[in-house]
Amino acid sequence: MAASRYDVLGIGNAIVDVIARAEDDFLVAHGMHKGTMALIDQKRAEKIYRAMGPAVESSGGSAANTIVGVASFGGRAAFVGKVKNDELGQAFTHDIRAARVAFDTKPATAGPSTARCYIMVTPDGERTMNTFLGAAQDLHPKDIDEAAIAASAVVYLEGYLWDPPHAKEAFVKAADIAHKSGRRVALTLSDAFCVDRYRAEFLNLIRKGTVDILFANERELHSLYETSDFDTAVKQLRADARLAVVTRSEKGCVVVARDGVEAVQAMPIEKVVDVTGAGDLFAAGFLIGHSHGKDHRTAARLGALAAAEVIQHIGARPAVSLKALAAENGLPV
Amino acid sequence: MAASRYDVLGIGNAIVDVIARAEDDFLVAHGMHKGTMALIDQKRAEKIYRAMGPAVESSGGSAANTIVGVASFGGRAAFVGKVKNDELGQAFTHDIRAARVAFDTKPATAGPSTARCYIMVTPDGERTMNTFLGAAQDLHPKDIDEAAIAASAVVYLEGYLWDPPHAKEAFVKAADIAHKSGRRVALTLSDAFCVDRYRAEFLNLIRKGTVDILFANERELHSLYETSDFDTAVKQLRADARLAVVTRSEKGCVVVARDGVEAVQAMPIEKVVDVTGAGDLFAAGFLIGHSHGKDHRTAARLGALAAAEVIQHIGARPAVSLKALAAENGLPV
Repeated sequence: MAASRYDVLGIGNAIVDVIARAEDDFLVAHGMHKGTMALIDQKRAEKIYRAMGPAVESSGGSAANTIVGVASFGGRAAFVGKVKNDELGQAFTHDIRAARVAFDTKPATAGPSTARCYIMVTPDGERTMNTFLGAAQDLHPKDIDEAAIAASAVVYLEGYLWDPPHAKEAFVKAADIAHKSGRRVALTLSDAFCVDRYRAEFLNLIRKGTVDILFANERELHSLYETSDFDTAVKQLRADARLAVVTRSEKGCVVVARDGVEAVQAMPIEKVVDVTGAGDLFAAGFLIGHSHGKDHRTAARLGALAAAEVIQHIGARPAVSLKALAAENGLPV
Repeated sequence: MAASRYDVLGIGNAIVDVIARAEDDFLVAHGMHKGTMALIDQKRAEKIYRAMGPAVESSGGSAANTIVGVASFGGRAAFVGKVKNDELGQAFTHDIRAARVAFDTKPATAGPSTARCYIMVTPDGERTMNTFLGAAQDLHPKDIDEAAIAASAVVYLEGYLWDPPHAKEAFVKAADIAHKSGRRVALTLSDAFCVDRYRAEFLNLIRKGTVDILFANERELHSLYETSDFDTAVKQLRADARLAVVTRSEKGCVVVARDGVEAVQAMPIEKVVDVTGAGDLFAAGFLIGHSHGKDHRTAARLGALAAAEVIQHIGARPAVSLKALAAENGLPV
């Protein structure tokens, strides 16, 4: 196997977040399910935007946030995702490249605008997301650069890729190239409703070994196995997955491996400001640890550290160098 | 004099801020003067953007920030400024309207893009600004709605309006309408280099009574009177201006009136994150207090409160309700 060019290459929906504070009754009034992601069309996007408060725009996208986290830890990182060449697409491209991530996917020159996610942050710090996929709809297998995939130690994919019509073909193509090149494939389940939409396909990917490392939060895990009992779900997960990490917010996480299940604590923090990106940054920390040969506990602690950083400010990408933060916390990478 | 429809109507450059953290040596390498605003053309804008780190986009503009602050205090507020009908212009329009500010200036449909200000925030919390004026260049006297001006208790203008070619004509037209309607005119000097560009004109406006209330920070005051001695400058200011407030960062402010000079302390805060908007929000608090008939000291304390809020987070607009914050601090408006 050739030396890798990238520690992690991520494939996901390229999205700009439009973030506003909102009260809980705003969610109720607009039929939003707190803490989840809903896909919306342009008409609903316009309606939500008109109703929501003053916002800030910040590059987002689940896998993109993870990849920026990997780069912030000092990892060699690349991203594949589709923007349009409009102002928000230019901002997305600027931000991810400025984070030292290789990003070469050709932008769309026609069709819908760059994807945006309207995020309501409630006073408890929880985020509720409404995604207009726009140009991200058009991610296509031809956007997958075979050489880049083959040169990445880990290919990281988001479950959200099941939503656009051709992105899952891109996903399968990338996983196939990765495995043929002796690389590993990681997947995040993304969202409980996303799991609900594609449960059988996700289970199939996990069981047949397309996925080597699985990330899920508790709600996604419960949705995957259609059970409200955590231990039952973990038992099934252990039988199905090679390696999985289940994040449980302030309760930390559980690393589920064939040889055992290990719980790792969350990092204590003062105040949750905005949980957007918590799962994405956890994955970044775990992946950088894993790709640098750390044990599961250390990798999980790096994940917890990155998640703790991102939930203490508005926005889903790190505000400080995670490499420096890890070193300060006795977890050099 | 008819009852007012607005407590404050602001006229200024309509700008979207593009904010990134930067080290001091970045400023040096790019020939930037820390803590000031420089006008840049499109070529330099592109060069700076390419070089700067990951950014967030947030509506800005000095007078616009002030007006949003007035609305956050519960004031009736309106804004006049020129965007293009592009994505950033739509974001600016959304944000200011979502803050309950009347904003009806017709957007440009051709010509350069919505103005943007590339802001570098250094580790000390200081901000260094590079403004590409874009569509704001085209603010014109015909954008001034006579009825709206005549119905505003205070018309608030930014010194930055001297930069675009026709905006100062709009400024003079608005001041003229305001005075004919028995309203007051307030001006902020904006920036020490801006004062340097238009010193004689600003002094003339102050001395001939076009300006009833003047806002300046210490550096702008020193630039106005070309002296490094604060007391000398205040003495001259007292002779020239009807009412002026000079802000001095952590040293608080000085209210300079014909009948005396009064110092008011700053609000103590824990950590300065980003000083962008400090002066703008000070003006918001002072103006809301003034327009509600509070004494100068109380108005200045409201200004200090709003400034303290905005410098404790990234971005130049309040993150909480200033009305609620004022009530909590025993300063109901």
